[in-house]
Amino acid sequence: MIPERTHSQLVAVGLGPGDPELVTMKGVRAIEAADLIFAPRSRTDEASRALRIAQPWINPQRQQVIPLTIPMHKDPAQAAAAYRSIADEIGSRLSALAAQRPQGVARGAYLLLGDPLLYGTFTTLRAELAAHYPSLVVGIVPGVTSFAAAAAQVGLPLSTGNDRIAILPAPATANELRTLLAQFETVILMKVGSKLPQIIATLDELHLLENAVYAEHIGMPEERIVRDIGSLRDYQAPYLSLLIVRR
Amino acid sequence: MIPERTHSQLVAVGLGPGDPELVTMKGVRAIEAADLIFAPRSRTDEASRALRIAQPWINPQRQQVIPLTIPMHKDPAQAAAAYRSIADEIGSRLSALAAQRPQGVARGAYLLLGDPLLYGTFTTLRAELAAHYPSLVVGIVPGVTSFAAAAAQVGLPLSTGNDRIAILPAPATANELRTLLAQFETVILMKVGSKLPQIIATLDELHLLENAVYAEHIGMPEERIVRDIGSLRDYQAPYLSLLIVRR
Repeated sequence: MIPERTHSQLVAVGLGPGDPELVTMKGVRAIEAADLIFAPRSRTDEASRALRIAQPWINPQRQQVIPLTIPMHKDPAQAAAAYRSIADEIGSRLSALAAQRPQGVARGAYLLLGDPLLYGTFTTLRAELAAHYPSLVVGIVPGVTSFAAAAAQVGLPLSTGNDRIAILPAPATANELRTLLAQFETVILMKVGSKLPQIIATLDELHLLENAVYAEHIGMPEERIVRDIGSLRDYQAPYLSLLIVRR
Repeated sequence: MIPERTHSQLVAVGLGPGDPELVTMKGVRAIEAADLIFAPRSRTDEASRALRIAQPWINPQRQQVIPLTIPMHKDPAQAAAAYRSIADEIGSRLSALAAQRPQGVARGAYLLLGDPLLYGTFTTLRAELAAHYPSLVVGIVPGVTSFAAAAAQVGLPLSTGNDRIAILPAPATANELRTLLAQFETVILMKVGSKLPQIIATLDELHLLENAVYAEHIGMPEERIVRDIGSLRDYQAPYLSLLIVRR
């Protein structure tokens, strides 16, 4: 019998919102099993976040950490080029290591916050890897989402019975938000950032200020969760912030 | 200084979709730290599910497992009475144990599938505990959701860029589904069950059959994930099933 051909693999590990305790057992094992740990960052302070979470399970004696800087491009062509070059870095590093191995196989873990398929940049990278490194086996470990962690911190139900939930980046207009709140019992606004004052004004109008929770950097040392969102009218929210409104 | 008064505590542990590897480190520690493990079941086969997942971390020498049967009542008054009696069982068991302890404190873990605040029955139980056992400290450990795990299994993106996601129990009419699919890039239908044939017919009409994934019992030995949902027209889906449609 001809032995089945084995391939190098990359596992995208959803580390959850930021608290190292919210990493799953499967995530821990994927990190521990990797030869190369890829730590992407979109800003200079972000690599340290994913890496800080994964650090306890990384053994520098036998594992190598490779930081990857993912530039933030609004232009799709530029973004594609950037991901192409990251895919090349991952693909070539794994191939080079596999070539040194008797079995010709190397294992990588790609660290990321939250869940790999819920927002974030992994989907774009995955398309580039599939196009240019088709023999690389890509696995995905799901992670706890930031909104589930924020809700757990304050005990806010996300849905009961037949409730409906909408999840979206903070909408452009007050009208959109009004329409959503008429249709859904729970609205989760991601990437709130500079839209916070306008959202607060709309919720105030709808008498929903008391039903909202604001959260930023969930599970991290700089975590901030605010129930009295009326106090945030002049607050400059960071990009990585969310708001859960329960009707 | 008078020592701060300590209270007994109950931690609701979201065990994730069913794969024991998808339990978080925090969940494992909450199970290990508990004196009493409460294993609710809504049907006879469900206690074994939550318990089967948690079992590797339970030590029968020093921990007691208490099965709780949660009856499925459609009538709100009957449901409230049922949860009141479950709250009483949890409260009285923890109190009785705490009374035997020098420090007067006992710790419980309440096991549940998925995430404690996303659908499920924990929200009702928590309200009863808060009303009748106000000194009991209730903590919540978030869990990986079944839809994130299903998406990870097949590599289906849930959202990229500014995509919007709607999560809801399978809707009553084809029109509702059509409206949702016009507004949201991703629609996640929970508790699909008997509505599957009607949903398939609607997706067929909208030429979206190829963009959908059907999943049941995610992460469990009986897991079934189907991408060719056209093949499921005559399938009797169980209640614990979901469908992800990506426009």
